[in-house]
Amino acid sequence: MRDVAVVGIGITKFGELWEQSFRNLFVEAGKAAILDSGVEKIDSMYVGCMSSGLFVGQEHIGCLMADYLGVSPIPAVRVESACASGGVAFRQAFIEVASGMSDVVLAGGVEKMTDVDGAIATYALATAADAEYEGFQGVTFPGLYAMMARAHMDRYGTTSEMLAHVSVKNHDNGNLNPYAQFPVKITVDTVLNSVMVADPLHILDCSPVTDGAAAVIVTTVENAKKLGKPAIRIAGSGMATDSIALHSRDDMTTLNATKVAAEKAFAMANMTLKDIDFAEVHDCFTIAELIVLESLGVYAPGKAGEAAMAGETARSGSFPVNPSGGLKSKGHPVGATGIAQIVELVKQLRGEAENGRQLDNVKRGLAQNMGGSGGSATVHILEV
Amino acid sequence: MRDVAVVGIGITKFGELWEQSFRNLFVEAGKAAILDSGVEKIDSMYVGCMSSGLFVGQEHIGCLMADYLGVSPIPAVRVESACASGGVAFRQAFIEVASGMSDVVLAGGVEKMTDVDGAIATYALATAADAEYEGFQGVTFPGLYAMMARAHMDRYGTTSEMLAHVSVKNHDNGNLNPYAQFPVKITVDTVLNSVMVADPLHILDCSPVTDGAAAVIVTTVENAKKLGKPAIRIAGSGMATDSIALHSRDDMTTLNATKVAAEKAFAMANMTLKDIDFAEVHDCFTIAELIVLESLGVYAPGKAGEAAMAGETARSGSFPVNPSGGLKSKGHPVGATGIAQIVELVKQLRGEAENGRQLDNVKRGLAQNMGGSGGSATVHILEV
Repeated sequence: MRDVAVVGIGITKFGELWEQSFRNLFVEAGKAAILDSGVEKIDSMYVGCMSSGLFVGQEHIGCLMADYLGVSPIPAVRVESACASGGVAFRQAFIEVASGMSDVVLAGGVEKMTDVDGAIATYALATAADAEYEGFQGVTFPGLYAMMARAHMDRYGTTSEMLAHVSVKNHDNGNLNPYAQFPVKITVDTVLNSVMVADPLHILDCSPVTDGAAAVIVTTVENAKKLGKPAIRIAGSGMATDSIALHSRDDMTTLNATKVAAEKAFAMANMTLKDIDFAEVHDCFTIAELIVLESLGVYAPGKAGEAAMAGETARSGSFPVNPSGGLKSKGHPVGATGIAQIVELVKQLRGEAENGRQLDNVKRGLAQNMGGSGGSATVHILEV
Repeated sequence: MRDVAVVGIGITKFGELWEQSFRNLFVEAGKAAILDSGVEKIDSMYVGCMSSGLFVGQEHIGCLMADYLGVSPIPAVRVESACASGGVAFRQAFIEVASGMSDVVLAGGVEKMTDVDGAIATYALATAADAEYEGFQGVTFPGLYAMMARAHMDRYGTTSEMLAHVSVKNHDNGNLNPYAQFPVKITVDTVLNSVMVADPLHILDCSPVTDGAAAVIVTTVENAKKLGKPAIRIAGSGMATDSIALHSRDDMTTLNATKVAAEKAFAMANMTLKDIDFAEVHDCFTIAELIVLESLGVYAPGKAGEAAMAGETARSGSFPVNPSGGLKSKGHPVGATGIAQIVELVKQLRGEAENGRQLDNVKRGLAQNMGGSGGSATVHILEV
């Protein structure tokens, strides 16, 4: 397998973008990534998208986006793994370039979630759970993560204040991100006094419904060196699955797919967690960020909440998490999120993060993206 | 890139399977493929599925199927390219094994289309077209292919009798396939007297709405030789795209994505059409089989209809096409079709085709699968 790097990034503003169409969002991000990279052409592309059928009445997304990006007849494949669709698109591009099948591949992600009303969006998102045993019985994602939060609180004494600190920290970061949906600073009190969605999760513990797209260009390290931008090497890639239904798991307070995906990525990279300077992780709900960090081994089980309160995961902390603002503040267009995480890693590793949110002296970052209540996960390690 | 082979196949009965669920169909095919191959474990899997969100209210398919097949935590990715989803799943498995990333990969496809009523199924299928410029304006797939048929008739003098011969031939073959949805012999008169769906396409020019699944196991040729079954080598793989909307094409009587995908597959295989003994092609409508054969170069433009009437594409003809019965008689569970084609190629190349539909002395077969009105296509060349 060949050594592979990211050489271009593109992202749209995240938000409730009524004046933008599904296809236009993807094209905007894709064009930005191509221009940023300096490549003359792409050989193939992947589009991460969770549920365009239910959100915008459109499937056959690879074909559509290649057509509107003006790159047909190249191969273009849509991949779906619920909210991990973007991470999977990135991984497939990595495999295709590593294999020698293609030299330059675009990996993008997109979701247009606000063209339907909230009830339909909630239904569409619930198709990431086990439809027959969870979704059709009325469980929604705030409900599933609320059960995980309750279990974590019960076992480890995690508090609503700890969860609120995750949200406050991610909004602090997102406030500096010009692409974020909610670039606003909030306080712990704002979170605790916000409306309850699914006890113990307040609305400010939940990531929003978002329109947006992101794209990156992947090529060989050798090829990357001939282009203008620093080559950000993909040192490790891991993907894993778990039971789709939350009730089928041995333990609701850990995420096994994330754990296994991280082990694979670290093994490929020949690294350990000590080598990593910062991370973008899948904070679809505040509790998710805590359980993910514990599953990655950044903190012992039950200890991530205290670390959040102590500021350890803030930009100035010992292990910065979600400098982009995360899903919470930046927004969560589900198919685009995994690629948006890679965009942030590349910005930080290039030293290009905007508005003073640049981390000091970072050489290696990790991105963790997951689908559903953690039934699928990807972990990628990038280094400059 | 490593040399890759198919070592196991599995397929369910195709039909209106009300007693079978979406997940059970996939598991049945997947288990059959694993058992047929003799492999002890699989490293990764791909699931081709077009629109489970609209058909059964379920996304996150890779995770779901890995879970129910009992193979978690391996990576499992759903790919979608409308009716070419199966062909794409096969291609991704090929790339992953060729790359060295994995040694044994399952490629499967599934669709459960009869749990919704006909109008919803028609809507779901129309999401393979350009939703904004075709589907939302009321065009359905019979309408799109009827326009292609009219254009072909106008330019080349193709007749309804020629189209009917395609249907009769595919039903002759499907009549011998125990997995076919409509294993019944029909006549040209039956087709011409059947109800008109979209002029000039009668209902017996159209493939049906179908439930079904298929799966294959892909590994290195080296590994395949250690297993019990003959290694069926994947000599070539090509994928390409075209404009998603029919009206955007230069020519409605040819299929450019199929043409380009075939060129790539032949280049990889270092073969020409002369090396190919038979083919499975995407006969979603009878006119599609004719235009595909012309786009592949089997017949000159406008000449495939006469060849069908002359019996050249029958099992006993000079270039047998769709010995499985094709989409027309075998059925068309859209996400599974591309894999079902590979299953038939492997059966024929192993000499295992049932009920006397085995072709004599075939060494190399081609499978062509496409999405929408031809906006995406895969071509694979297999050899024993």
